[in-house]
Formats: sequence, structure tokens, C-alpha cells
Amino acid sequence: MRRPTIIDIARAVGVSKAAVSYALNGRGGVSQETRERILEVAAEMGWRASSAARALSSDRAATVGVVLARSPEVLRTEPFFMQVVAGLEQTLSAHGFSLQLALASDPGTELETYRRWWAERRVDGVLLTDLRVDDPRPALLRELRIPAVFFGTERPMAGIPVLWVDEHDIADNAVGHLVDLGHRRIGHVQGPGQLRHTARRERELRRAAEDSGVDLVQDHGDYTEDGGIAATARLLAVEAPPTAVIFDNDVMAVASVARAEELGVRVPADLSVLAWDDSMLCRVVRPAITAFSHDVGAAAARAALMLLELIETGVADDARLQPRELVTRDSTAPAPGLG
Amino acid sequence: MRRPTIIDIARAVGVSKAAVSYALNGRGGVSQETRERILEVAAEMGWRASSAARALSSDRAATVGVVLARSPEVLRTEPFFMQVVAGLEQTLSAHGFSLQLALASDPGTELETYRRWWAERRVDGVLLTDLRVDDPRPALLRELRIPAVFFGTERPMAGIPVLWVDEHDIADNAVGHLVDLGHRRIGHVQGPGQLRHTARRERELRRAAEDSGVDLVQDHGDYTEDGGIAATARLLAVEAPPTAVIFDNDVMAVASVARAEELGVRVPADLSVLAWDDSMLCRVVRPAITAFSHDVGAAAARAALMLLELIETGVADDARLQPRELVTRDSTAPAPGLG
Repeated sequence: MRRPTIIDIARAVGVSKAAVSYALNGRGGVSQETRERILEVAAEMGWRASSAARALSSDRAATVGVVLARSPEVLRTEPFFMQVVAGLEQTLSAHGFSLQLALASDPGTELETYRRWWAERRVDGVLLTDLRVDDPRPALLRELRIPAVFFGTERPMAGIPVLWVDEHDIADNAVGHLVDLGHRRIGHVQGPGQLRHTARRERELRRAAEDSGVDLVQDHGDYTEDGGIAATARLLAVEAPPTAVIFDNDVMAVASVARAEELGVRVPADLSVLAWDDSMLCRVVRPAITAFSHDVGAAAARAALMLLELIETGVADDARLQPRELVTRDSTAPAPGLG
Repeated sequence: MRRPTIIDIARAVGVSKAAVSYALNGRGGVSQETRERILEVAAEMGWRASSAARALSSDRAATVGVVLARSPEVLRTEPFFMQVVAGLEQTLSAHGFSLQLALASDPGTELETYRRWWAERRVDGVLLTDLRVDDPRPALLRELRIPAVFFGTERPMAGIPVLWVDEHDIADNAVGHLVDLGHRRIGHVQGPGQLRHTARRERELRRAAEDSGVDLVQDHGDYTEDGGIAATARLLAVEAPPTAVIFDNDVMAVASVARAEELGVRVPADLSVLAWDDSMLCRVVRPAITAFSHDVGAAAARAALMLLELIETGVADDARLQPRELVTRDSTAPAPGLG
């Protein structure tokens, strides 16, 4: 055997397997002297209760699961998920929990992963993000009674604590910043249509544009560079094209700035660009991109704490994500003709 | 109980717990009729052998562990690790394995994590990267006999299969590209000094520079933006400063381009910039950065396959990483005075 087992210890001490088991589990059936000898040898041999055995006895895996449900391409380029993973892991490890990760390329695989993790007792709870339209996950989690926390969504969600975000003010800030610069026709390159936060931002930006009396044209990207460029090109092809575009993520905004020539515009002279997510990409591209910054790692850590509380106590309250801050850089400028 | 257990099934069928156990494990002791009834009810109730119980019986966790041993700051900005995670996960999940992740901010924590994972049978093997000078990990892994594969290092490593990289040709290509452009004084902003691949690249670039008869000045960054800028500033402060700099990662190269003004140079008019790692960052910054591209996800997938083979058979051969390709972009140009 590679790892010391109860049998190895029994042989080394010269007692029965049962005696070792009694001693290690603090039960009666062995003399004080034998118990001490067994514990001493077990420590020398580096024996430790296996997590499998402990999970069986305590019904606890000391593990939290996360399924990353975006395409490998988006995962590779978007800094968002690594920030989430780093934030989760720091909090979980401080509490003696491990992080189990899986990728899922389709919703069916994701559901199957939760079923399998739970049925096989691999995880004590799961953390989810990107609530979708007609999302089957909350119902499945409720049905299986998996402790779960949803991250960055709206509230309330029946039976599932959420770390919710209020995008009302962000939408007002985004539109307000552009209106202050004289923009009257604003474009919005959205994320994938099946995400609930895409719909939420669509609604909030529409409301904010109406409140300010400016035009808003919206189109869907898919969070990738090419998807962002294609959606921007469609927005710029309308009769009275927008003079500023708000992008739902950093990658699409950065692509539009880096490949502005392809789009036939100069940024910011012809087109102002604003990103909903800040990252190193927004800082290093030229012009650097005005963006909403938020501490994704801290938010992920908060979600991890909520989940640990839920696993421990069976209850966790909803919490609100810290609002994002607008960091103005060179990609937003007065509307053409007003500079 | 939240998840169906053998007891639940026994109650539902009206048989003993032992009978259910016999039926589910395919042993004798129950009639054919009872066995079928038990299996039917178990399937209806969504019963599945818990991974804990299966791990105990098969001595297999069906999980591979990876400790990410860089600072949260580097993890957040460097696209490298998310590409590794994505590549590993796709391969592991296709083979029914899970990925267990941990962050470690210091070497002691990393070693303790391997000890704990192994003693508690949480993982069947581990994947490691970033071999360090005087690295205590190979010895620990050999001592504990944890199946392990090292990724992106030199060969051979006693008792541990490696996915090794030959940087001889890359160094020649990097220096050759710059020499062809007329550069005679080349700078090299290296990664952290404690990494073995930093030392390997230092050696190979020095050899390549000598072979070409050009000067090479080297300094250490720490893979972060600020560290890269500081090291570049030191290189540019020497009496005869380099006209081209090779950076050990994308983040430092991109920082030097995005913040060239801080450094008092124009890229590429005064200074050519070349990055050892390509990523979206190199593509979107202006000028876009000449870089060595390689498919990190595919390499990680290869390492995962080696580890699965090692876990399954006890043996895995060393393999060689695909060589990197130089992608020339606008950040490298003729040396000043030659343009």
C-alpha cells in the first residue's frame, strides 16, 4: 500500500486491525497503553483518516463545487473567471474547504454534473453564476436540496440565497457619463441573450436612456472579440449610427478599440467606448477604456462565505454586491462635432 | 437524509439493509427477484454509490489536484493559468475525473496541501508546473509516492514524468529576429529568479546572443506590470541601453508598451519589444506585440493524459511540448537609425 492503512499500523504495532480502529476512533476495547502505542505509530507513519472515510462518517466532503459554463474560448480570454476562482479559493482554503471545478459546454452537462457531484457526495454545496432565461438549475438544486448560492443575479430566488446586484445606478451612470459628453445616440453591445443579466442590463439601459431622452440601439455579442466586432459593425450600419457604444464585457470593448480600423471609426473621435467590466485589457489598450471597475475577487469571496454559512447552518441571507465605480479613461470623449 | 441511502432503499423495498447492499454490489445473498426490485427502486430514488464509499473500496478518488502557486495578482492578470485550467478540465472530465484546485501563497502551504490531499485520499495524482531552484516538491512527491507529472520543465526528473520544453530554438529565434532587424544590444526582462525556467531562458538567451555576437543585458521582473516596468527602466538606464527587449511573459511586455511614455521611449521607434508568451493582451495593445505563441490548453491536455496514464498503469513517458511559433507584429522594427 502506498499510504499507511489501519492494517499497516496493526502489523507495525502487532495488534489486531480492530484494536487500531478502536484506538484511532477513540472508542473502548483497547488498553490505555496499547492505545498510546497505536497513536504513536500511526503518527510516525503519517496516517490520517482518509477524506473518504471521514466524508462517510460526517456526511461532509469539505468541498465546494463550481461549474464553469462558458465556452473554452471565453474562459481563455475573459479575466473574469480566474478572478472568481482566485477569490473563491482563498476563502474556501482558509475554512478548510477545497474547490472542485468542472467545465460544461452545454446546460445538460452542467445539470448532470450537479446530480453526479451530489449523488456521489463529492461536494457539500455549489456556487453558481450567469442565471439564464428559463434556467433549469434553481429547480434542480431545490429538488436535490443542494446547498447553493447564486452570484451576481437579481433577488429574490425562491429557496436559494443570492449575492445580488443592482444595475439601476450603473445604467444611470453609464448613460449619464455619455450624455454629459454630448452623446444623443448610444449603442449597446450586449452579452448572450440567454443570460438574465443581459436582459437586466438591456432593461436598465433602456430605462436610463428614456429618462435622459436619448436614443438607444442594442445588439447582441457573445462576449468574444469577433462577436463584439460583428455586433458593433451592425450598430454602426444603421442610418443614424450611435456616437458612443456601451459594451457588456471588457473583451468586446477592447476588440472594438483595437480593431477600430476594421469598423471604419476612430476612438474616441468618432466613437466613444465604455465597458461594463474593467480589467487589465481595458487599461493597456489605446485609447485606454472607460469602464466600471469592481472587485470580482472580493465578491467571489463574499459568495463563498455565504455558501459556507449555508452549509454550516442551513440558512444564509441574501447580500448585495458592492456597486461598481466608473473609471473614466481616454475612450470616452465629447460627441463628434462637440470636441 | 437528503440523499437516498441504502437504508432508504431498504425501507422502500421492505428488505434488510444487507440485502440492499448485496444487490447493489452484485453479490449473492438475495433472490433474483428481490435484486431486481431493489435495483429498480434504487434507480427511481436516484441512488448512486457515493464517491466516498467508492473511493474507499477502489482506493480511487477519480480526482486530480493542481496547486496554483503564484500570487493572486499574477493569477488575476495572466491568462496562462485559466488556459491551463480549461485544458486540464476538458481532458479530465472526458475521462470521468474531476479537478481539485488550491491556491498556495508560499511553498510550505503547497507542500502541506499535497500531504493533506494524499493522506486524505482526495486526489489520485497531481500536476505541477513552475519547477523552482532547490524545489522541495519532487522529493516530497517521490517520498509520498504521489503520481505526479511536471509540466513545461526540463528533463529528466528522477521518478517523475515531465512534459518538457526545449528553449534552445526559441532563444535562437528570438535573438535571430532582432539581429535581422539590426539590433546589437538586446535586453531581457526575466521572470522570478527562483523559477527554473527563468534560469533556463537566461542561459539559452545568453548562449544565443554570444552565438550571434550581440550584447545581452538581463534583469528580473516578477511577471507583474509594475515589476516589468521597473526592470525595463533599470535596463534602459545603463550607459549603452538596449534597443530591443525580450520579456519572459505577456503581462510585462504589454505593460512596457502601454506605459512606454513612463519609460521615455517610443515602441518600436526607440525600442523593439518581444514577448515569450502570446495572449489577447499582446494582440490588442498598440503596437501589437511580436510574441511566441503556443497552445497552452493543448499542452495542459497532454499533461493531463500523461497523468491519467500514470495513475492507471504506474508508468508514463516523458513528452516534449510543441515548439512555440514566433508571431511577428508591430512592436519589433529595425534598430534606431536603421529604419
